[in-house]
Amino acid sequence: MNRIITIGREFGSGGREFGRRLSEELGIAYYDQEIISEISRRTSLSEHYVQSIVEHRPVLPYPIHIGTSFYPTVNPVFEQSMTVYQEQARIISEMAMKSDCVIVGRCADYILKDCKPFRIFVYADMESKIRRCREKAPEGEKLTDKELKQQITAMDKRRAKYYEFYTGHKWGDKLNFDICINTSHTVIKEIVPVVAKLLEK
Amino acid sequence: MNRIITIGREFGSGGREFGRRLSEELGIAYYDQEIISEISRRTSLSEHYVQSIVEHRPVLPYPIHIGTSFYPTVNPVFEQSMTVYQEQARIISEMAMKSDCVIVGRCADYILKDCKPFRIFVYADMESKIRRCREKAPEGEKLTDKELKQQITAMDKRRAKYYEFYTGHKWGDKLNFDICINTSHTVIKEIVPVVAKLLEK
Repeated sequence: MNRIITIGREFGSGGREFGRRLSEELGIAYYDQEIISEISRRTSLSEHYVQSIVEHRPVLPYPIHIGTSFYPTVNPVFEQSMTVYQEQARIISEMAMKSDCVIVGRCADYILKDCKPFRIFVYADMESKIRRCREKAPEGEKLTDKELKQQITAMDKRRAKYYEFYTGHKWGDKLNFDICINTSHTVIKEIVPVVAKLLEK
Repeated sequence: MNRIITIGREFGSGGREFGRRLSEELGIAYYDQEIISEISRRTSLSEHYVQSIVEHRPVLPYPIHIGTSFYPTVNPVFEQSMTVYQEQARIISEMAMKSDCVIVGRCADYILKDCKPFRIFVYADMESKIRRCREKAPEGEKLTDKELKQQITAMDKRRAKYYEFYTGHKWGDKLNFDICINTSHTVIKEIVPVVAKLLEK
């Protein structure tokens, strides 16, 4: 069985950098944006649209019943979200079958649970997430700390809802991970080689 | 400043073994039961009694007011709990001043926050905690899984209340730790040398 590492992460915690560096350290594949591109290719939806779908839990259409009888209503947006999620799950499974890899986000820990992935969660305190977001912000963007905090909180809330919708589990619950790493006071490139040692065959 | 490592842990997760092995790996002091002995020596209370106090949050005596005026009532049990906690905090601070060390439990992460300890939390799923407790049970003890689960849950509930009473923080909240390690599927003596590398000077 291939060695699969999944990374869950809070927005601004450096989880993506962590995952990329870890794959480089271990010399294995790294999947992140590639998954979006592949869904887009297979479904003929734009990458931008796919990205927007995989960042939100689908909203169940109302009413789900009329009068006293229940019957399924067809809602194209809801259906499309489910199609994208199913395609994403299929692609992630294919990637995991192909070779050792690191997969960031996208409920991969849940989708690949039968492959027994090593599940990492990367998190940080708000202060350092704000600092990291500010460092990575496009030039000229001048958001206040309060605005950045609102963005970070909103993004994590979306991730939590998305994860909980598809997996039924609480997002970020440490029981769903093998190790949780707080990046508030660490330099990611310094800790990655050590964590990689936990994963060497 | 000395290198201080604090270990919070769920009951049955192997946190104590983890701490002991980590101190051996790093060649530094390890404090656990020694703290109880030292409190006992300084307060002239029996080790057994001190142990029972440090495992429970003190219960605030009622009534705290009589008629319409508030005033502090003196309750010897409550006072004694506070004295033991203060003595414990003093001893832990002294130990941290003396040399590099690993300290298990006892709100040490909070007491020593100014020393910037490396804070580890060790946890596991219920199944593996039951298995570990069964392996360590005294010979002849025949508890069912249900009884063991009740014991584990009760002990962790006590720890949570104790921690929250003295620190004001949620027990086991990953934001209060630098790394959280799930021991459900790992062999502690195999992961300790790797974690030790995170801590080598």
